[in-house]
Amino acid sequence: MSAAIQPGRFISFEGTEGVGKSTAIDNLCVRLDAEGVAYIKTREPGGSPFAEQLRSLLLDVKTQINDDTELLLMFAARSDHLQQVILPALAAGQWVICDRFVDSSVAYQGYGRGHGDAQMLAKIDSLIDRFVPTLPDLTLWLDLPVQEGMQRAQKRSAADRFEQQQLDFFDRVYQGFQAQQQAHPQRIQRVDAAGDAEQVASRIWALVQELRA
Amino acid sequence: MSAAIQPGRFISFEGTEGVGKSTAIDNLCVRLDAEGVAYIKTREPGGSPFAEQLRSLLLDVKTQINDDTELLLMFAARSDHLQQVILPALAAGQWVICDRFVDSSVAYQGYGRGHGDAQMLAKIDSLIDRFVPTLPDLTLWLDLPVQEGMQRAQKRSAADRFEQQQLDFFDRVYQGFQAQQQAHPQRIQRVDAAGDAEQVASRIWALVQELRA
Repeated sequence: MSAAIQPGRFISFEGTEGVGKSTAIDNLCVRLDAEGVAYIKTREPGGSPFAEQLRSLLLDVKTQINDDTELLLMFAARSDHLQQVILPALAAGQWVICDRFVDSSVAYQGYGRGHGDAQMLAKIDSLIDRFVPTLPDLTLWLDLPVQEGMQRAQKRSAADRFEQQQLDFFDRVYQGFQAQQQAHPQRIQRVDAAGDAEQVASRIWALVQELRA
Repeated sequence: MSAAIQPGRFISFEGTEGVGKSTAIDNLCVRLDAEGVAYIKTREPGGSPFAEQLRSLLLDVKTQINDDTELLLMFAARSDHLQQVILPALAAGQWVICDRFVDSSVAYQGYGRGHGDAQMLAKIDSLIDRFVPTLPDLTLWLDLPVQEGMQRAQKRSAADRFEQQQLDFFDRVYQGFQAQQQAHPQRIQRVDAAGDAEQVASRIWALVQELRA
């Protein structure tokens, strides 16, 4: 008898702009490689050929479509990504390392664009309940003050009026991640994203090790 | 003081293939023109520039995407169509004559593709509840035996094996319309679609007259 395949682990990375998700993902992948763990690296929105088509469409028309349409397109893309990429990989025993997942929908569409409107949040929750059959085993929320992240991202130190508006937006997105972490404290682990990349990588690796036990 | 604009009426046409929706819509529009009623004629999926883009995408990839993705794209298109076209027209006092609307989602995605699966129907209902702020004032379900409609549509009399599979699919779609009509007997009126086009147009006009009262 051959041993049953142990399903892979599903890890998502979340956070506002400039918190260092890409670097943190790369550093996790180096460690997984060293341990011989089979994994795929993917992202949202997108991650499958059709979802990437929708991503391009979204980036093209973002300013002209209403919030409901954007939200439904996000979940259409997510459904394709799940069925085509994430679920097959997990079933084959591979780990899935995903740059953004459902919590970004709550933070960006629900809190950022929707200003935390209860009806919008209820819409998002119902879409997650009905159309997302598998949530991550572990979500790493890279937590850095918004202004610091934006400075990292923009490599500038002063915020003009337009950037100030962006700051307000990203403050709400930050509150969204915070609210999600409080609502799902088991799944979502806060990771202090301050300090150098190696320190952050070590913090993350400690949390990931627990998943392997 | 100017009189407040009386909102328009929203009428959708539903039915399986070949029941004569296009002709019935044209005949209704002739009568509305004669009465000087301002209206727009639209359709789903599509009906607004962005929704028509999604319609093309859907027709392109239909066979390669999963049922949830298709359903979410349909409602993304519907949301744009509502916000860009239907709601503004109604608010301006125009009538909206729409070829297919939510009941087609129930019949085609829920019963046709989903085989009436309870979970799929619940998904569709929740999307209607949360993302469709306005239902039609009147839905005209053109009722004709499936085989008769398909013969009209295909102008052929014999069904080969592939067409037989289609027949099974459209039988389920028909059951979907029937179930919707029973669930919403006020909004959805069954119209006997047998007989010549003028007879059908008269049946429809009698129902529409009640809306004007």
